[in-house]
Amino acid sequence: MPTINDIADKLGISKGTVSKALNGANDVSETLRKKVLETAVEIGYARNRARKHTANRLCVIVENIHHEDPGDFGYAIVMGFKKLAIPAGWEVDVVSVTEELQKSISYDAFMLSREYKGAFIIGMSLLDPWMEELKTARTPAVLYDNYIPENPRVCYIGVDNSEAFLITIRHLTKLGHTQIGYLGGDMDSFVSRRRHDAFLDAMDVHGLTVDKKRIGCSYFITELTQKYLPRLLSSHVTAIVCGTDLLAQAVIVGCMDMGYRVPEDVSIVGFDDAPFAAYTSPALTTIRQNQEALGNCGFYALNSLINQTYIGTLLLRAELIDRASTGKVRRKKKLAPPRKLPS
Amino acid sequence: MPTINDIADKLGISKGTVSKALNGANDVSETLRKKVLETAVEIGYARNRARKHTANRLCVIVENIHHEDPGDFGYAIVMGFKKLAIPAGWEVDVVSVTEELQKSISYDAFMLSREYKGAFIIGMSLLDPWMEELKTARTPAVLYDNYIPENPRVCYIGVDNSEAFLITIRHLTKLGHTQIGYLGGDMDSFVSRRRHDAFLDAMDVHGLTVDKKRIGCSYFITELTQKYLPRLLSSHVTAIVCGTDLLAQAVIVGCMDMGYRVPEDVSIVGFDDAPFAAYTSPALTTIRQNQEALGNCGFYALNSLINQTYIGTLLLRAELIDRASTGKVRRKKKLAPPRKLPS
Repeated sequence: MPTINDIADKLGISKGTVSKALNGANDVSETLRKKVLETAVEIGYARNRARKHTANRLCVIVENIHHEDPGDFGYAIVMGFKKLAIPAGWEVDVVSVTEELQKSISYDAFMLSREYKGAFIIGMSLLDPWMEELKTARTPAVLYDNYIPENPRVCYIGVDNSEAFLITIRHLTKLGHTQIGYLGGDMDSFVSRRRHDAFLDAMDVHGLTVDKKRIGCSYFITELTQKYLPRLLSSHVTAIVCGTDLLAQAVIVGCMDMGYRVPEDVSIVGFDDAPFAAYTSPALTTIRQNQEALGNCGFYALNSLINQTYIGTLLLRAELIDRASTGKVRRKKKLAPPRKLPS
Repeated sequence: MPTINDIADKLGISKGTVSKALNGANDVSETLRKKVLETAVEIGYARNRARKHTANRLCVIVENIHHEDPGDFGYAIVMGFKKLAIPAGWEVDVVSVTEELQKSISYDAFMLSREYKGAFIIGMSLLDPWMEELKTARTPAVLYDNYIPENPRVCYIGVDNSEAFLITIRHLTKLGHTQIGYLGGDMDSFVSRRRHDAFLDAMDVHGLTVDKKRIGCSYFITELTQKYLPRLLSSHVTAIVCGTDLLAQAVIVGCMDMGYRVPEDVSIVGFDDAPFAAYTSPALTTIRQNQEALGNCGFYALNSLINQTYIGTLLLRAELIDRASTGKVRRKKKLAPPRKLPS
């Protein structure tokens, strides 16, 4: 097991300086401190035990997702994590890591410097610098809706997208729909890609053909509603499955603006069951992501990684919340023409 | 919340008789007891709390897998489960449920009658009567290597087969193999089907074509070694991936009997890392299923189901154990002809 001495030898500095650097003393330069941390990570140094009066520490890293208020998507996820972690004796910090921070220090060195035993990471995108490092990271990390292949120290948790889309398409086929379209996020996002693929698979399982004109993927909601939605509608879809609730809400408004009634002319399904989903007009049929359960699973998985049980994937069951934005297909009746104001 | 009174009303018997039946008193007939239990399950009755002096109880249901001795495949799985469950305050019984028992009482009624809060089920086949009932069961159950769609009370745990075969095929391609065959269990087994499909996907990811003549699936090892193995060898495979270690061992012997050297002529890969895998000749390259970790995960998942966190799928990382049964492909040299005794 590498010690402080090994770091000192490798860098040609004193053991005292290494110790000061690791403990964040003021009289060590930031450059040297960084060098010490990176060397410590490189040779696999781990602190023997938490210092006196220091609890075991975990962090929740939140990027690109709001979590401060009860109405925020990340709020219940963070709560769900804390509710299990704190009674189990862990101290939990919620931290934000800007792109600058990620570029200035590696993930492992950051975790070592703060004495975190593991991280629950929410909302990081494939473009975040640490995503690349996580492929070989040594400090346990659980990622919500992101998957890193083959690194046993990293685990993916999320809702089972395959099951979610199977349930959604079955729900729609029971209502008589066969001409179904999909709108979702762009392919640079792991979870957007998964949902897109899960949609195709579910259509295939139900023996339905997918017309490329009936699929639109983009990072930008305006592109989805203004460019792809009209294309879907003119290709005679009777139902549209959306990758998120936010998008579904925009699609409902877009349909109505173009004179289509929801669900009489077009059924719309969302994904997330965000707090507002019950209050759209009509109320949104959607797949629930139980956020508190996601937080619970974040802790289960992180705790197991820390205990050297290398879970790679943990998926929650998907649940369809059947509200008012889906209805029976009107087979015989032609869709209403785009609304025009009386002249 | 349904009570004993509701059961009594429904059956038209006294509350005392219901209570006696639930508690297994001798003066209640087996027929009546069964009727009471089935009714209790039907109306969703749950005991308010464990009776005095009765610990919270879980059971490990073991079918078709040996687990009594340290050399048995199920031994460390059961140990891994107990090691977490018992310190957490659970009493754990290991029970065997014959087909007769499964036919005589439903899963839920069995669990209620024994006061088990949940089950970790190892080794059940798709033909076991309870597999059908688990689709709608209400008592939490975690299944090793079996998947039940859409019932949130049931969770599937196992090793990530997709990752396992991606790693295996990459290992073989790095050694120069492109003509790779597969032998595995029959398609009536959930896990055999998963492994077969994962093999095809991994070949596809690596840009390798699969020749149907190079695939054999059967429940019977003799059929695999006597019928399919010669077919694979005559179709010039240089490597064979096997669905289990037991099969891989038989395949090694079969190859040698036909005059093929392992790994000089044919590389062989197993799956499981069973206790004997290090002692085959040559020692077997295989995918490790960490049995103790599987047992740990069985408890993590069951505990989370009991706490209403509905994990549906939990997959452990796959790890390739590189031993002596795989080697570099001999590109230029023709395979040795089948050995013949000197006349």
